Amino acid sequence: MKRIAILGSTGSIGRSTLSVIESYPDRFQVATLAAGANLEVALEQTLRWKPRVVSLANEQDADALRSRLRNSGFGGTKIVHGAAGTVCVATHPEVDFVVSAIVGVAGLEATYEAVKAGKAVGLANKECLVVAGELITAEARRQGKPLLPIDSEHNAVHQCLRGGTPVEVERIWLTASGGPFLKTPKSAFASITVEQALNHPTWKMGKRITIDSATLMNKGFEVIEACRLFHVPPSRVQVIVHPQSTIHSMVEFVDGSILAQFSVTDMRLPILYALTYPERVPSEFRFPVMDLRHLDFCPPDMAKFPCLRLAYEAAQAGGVKTIALNAADEVAVAAFLSERIGFEEIPRIIEEVMAATPAGNLESINKVLALDAGARQLAEDMVKQKKRPASPVRAIP
Amino acid sequence: MKRIAILGSTGSIGRSTLSVIESYPDRFQVATLAAGANLEVALEQTLRWKPRVVSLANEQDADALRSRLRNSGFGGTKIVHGAAGTVCVATHPEVDFVVSAIVGVAGLEATYEAVKAGKAVGLANKECLVVAGELITAEARRQGKPLLPIDSEHNAVHQCLRGGTPVEVERIWLTASGGPFLKTPKSAFASITVEQALNHPTWKMGKRITIDSATLMNKGFEVIEACRLFHVPPSRVQVIVHPQSTIHSMVEFVDGSILAQFSVTDMRLPILYALTYPERVPSEFRFPVMDLRHLDFCPPDMAKFPCLRLAYEAAQAGGVKTIALNAADEVAVAAFLSERIGFEEIPRIIEEVMAATPAGNLESINKVLALDAGARQLAEDMVKQKKRPASPVRAIP
Repeated sequence: MKRIAILGSTGSIGRSTLSVIESYPDRFQVATLAAGANLEVALEQTLRWKPRVVSLANEQDADALRSRLRNSGFGGTKIVHGAAGTVCVATHPEVDFVVSAIVGVAGLEATYEAVKAGKAVGLANKECLVVAGELITAEARRQGKPLLPIDSEHNAVHQCLRGGTPVEVERIWLTASGGPFLKTPKSAFASITVEQALNHPTWKMGKRITIDSATLMNKGFEVIEACRLFHVPPSRVQVIVHPQSTIHSMVEFVDGSILAQFSVTDMRLPILYALTYPERVPSEFRFPVMDLRHLDFCPPDMAKFPCLRLAYEAAQAGGVKTIALNAADEVAVAAFLSERIGFEEIPRIIEEVMAATPAGNLESINKVLALDAGARQLAEDMVKQKKRPASPVRAIP
Repeated sequence: MKRIAILGSTGSIGRSTLSVIESYPDRFQVATLAAGANLEVALEQTLRWKPRVVSLANEQDADALRSRLRNSGFGGTKIVHGAAGTVCVATHPEVDFVVSAIVGVAGLEATYEAVKAGKAVGLANKECLVVAGELITAEARRQGKPLLPIDSEHNAVHQCLRGGTPVEVERIWLTASGGPFLKTPKSAFASITVEQALNHPTWKMGKRITIDSATLMNKGFEVIEACRLFHVPPSRVQVIVHPQSTIHSMVEFVDGSILAQFSVTDMRLPILYALTYPERVPSEFRFPVMDLRHLDFCPPDMAKFPCLRLAYEAAQAGGVKTIALNAADEVAVAAFLSERIGFEEIPRIIEEVMAATPAGNLESINKVLALDAGARQLAEDMVKQKKRPASPVRAIP
């Protein structure tokens, strides 16, 4: 019986994880949960799963949950809150496996502490690898415990890598849907509206990741994640556009053989893979291979999507530069979404913040968080200097 | 240093194997060679590789090779001949790995003896698995030595299988180019000419295998080989048409994940894989992933290609039925090539021979060879009864 902690239990990945656990009651049990501010769902989950510990983001919600549970006559769960509460959930002695699915740098500390406590960790939080990848993977190696990727691309890579040893890997190929502007000419990029950018052709996702998909920054983050997770330099990670997103990613070996992975696009599949690794267990998720018809591919246009180039540069520089990349992107995307800057200014702001950030290594999660705050402030200042012109939208030179 | 025996050294796979050995002189050396009747090439290979033993098909050629070598002042190689000579090459004590690449049942005995002698074996001979698969794989299991497939499909499956354990395999997907008649309507099949059938869209191959590709019997044989080699029932092996033949084959796991393998189509790659397994070594064979454009797939039409159905039936029945399938196919294809029967009569003859052959298990290679001879005779008799009408060709009801 594997005892699971979920960091971010009320979010999409958290709920999918609970759905997987529900389907395999003889394999998994919920040990602890960390949620944000969704009190109703946290209450439901606590009553349903009876975890040892539940943590909420703030004290008032924790108090409210405690009293609601008392009113329901249920007293078996310890309720905690805040960053310390999340760490308590992640490092609880009765936890074997931690699913790290809190969005943003908020998930960083608890994930790092889970790794340090010798837990196996399934990573759905992008920031863990993008801004603190070196620290977290080094600690996982020291502990001799696996870090299992819970997103379709890196999960696919993890599966393909089983076809050889690490020194036999020539290249990792990440597939990219190409986003909504795959066929939009570069000349039209300056006038891209928020509405157009939010209209992703294949996925329904949160706003920031949808914009990151439109700029290909999301794929850039995945390049950095692949470098950190699989210990390869950026020159050995390539992106190929594959609009159907059927093949989730590929690994090319030194002998010239390439393995590709595909499956239905349901997050429960990589979650199940991570939770059961190194075993595979039967699931209901069948890809209808006989219905395969066409798969298309094309190289990414790095000139049209400068965010991808910036991510490669950050991956190469490592350390502080990836923090600047992520922080500046988050700020710039928010500014675009609130129509304070144009679409083409997103990469410009990121590039300026990266240039203004001196290179350096990471020493601790606290330093990561401080650098992250600094880079955000810098990005905010740059956004203010670049006020977007009032409509009508015009091309920005 | 791995010491290699090649059964069929002057054929296409044999020469490709020598080319691989030449590229990795620090890894491999030629220990022994068995050739057919190509005296000139056998002489060259003997002088170049200085093997311990060389075997030719018949005594006169062996004598001639011996005297030619004496005239060249070279005396380091023992020259033998015939079936016993091939067995001597395959079981020589200084051999670590045997490449089995003699076409037809002629390669059967020596390959079986190599397995029995505890050699690792790379299989390029189809008949070993189609007509004697149960015997050979059982013996390899007993010896605890690997049987490594040297053909693009099964080699691809072997690679994909590394993504899980045998019990985690849900299904093997063999890709098929579809042959020259993929888009020909069934109604036109009766009038297919030898010339049309020999015009394969992607591969230049021997005549029998080209016709077997046109009837999809070749894929049927591969289904049987996959069942024997990977110990799965026919229900777990499926064929999918993929005209570009980029993806060589796929494995679907119980959790719903599918791994696919692709690479350049050069036989040296599966040979290298087999010779170095479980290692992968760097090669010059790079698939240009960035040039990937379109991959197409469709289900096979079992009604149009009854040979594929017959192969599934033989795979299910096993033993003697697969011998009947192979022998009848060889005879029927030869009859088609010499215009004694029409294209649609190939599966009819095979079906009749299979029906007339009582089911039964295989006890020894000698019994396999006797049953093979019997099935061939039966097929010849049936061909005689079915004299093809003189031209003009008409539809056969």
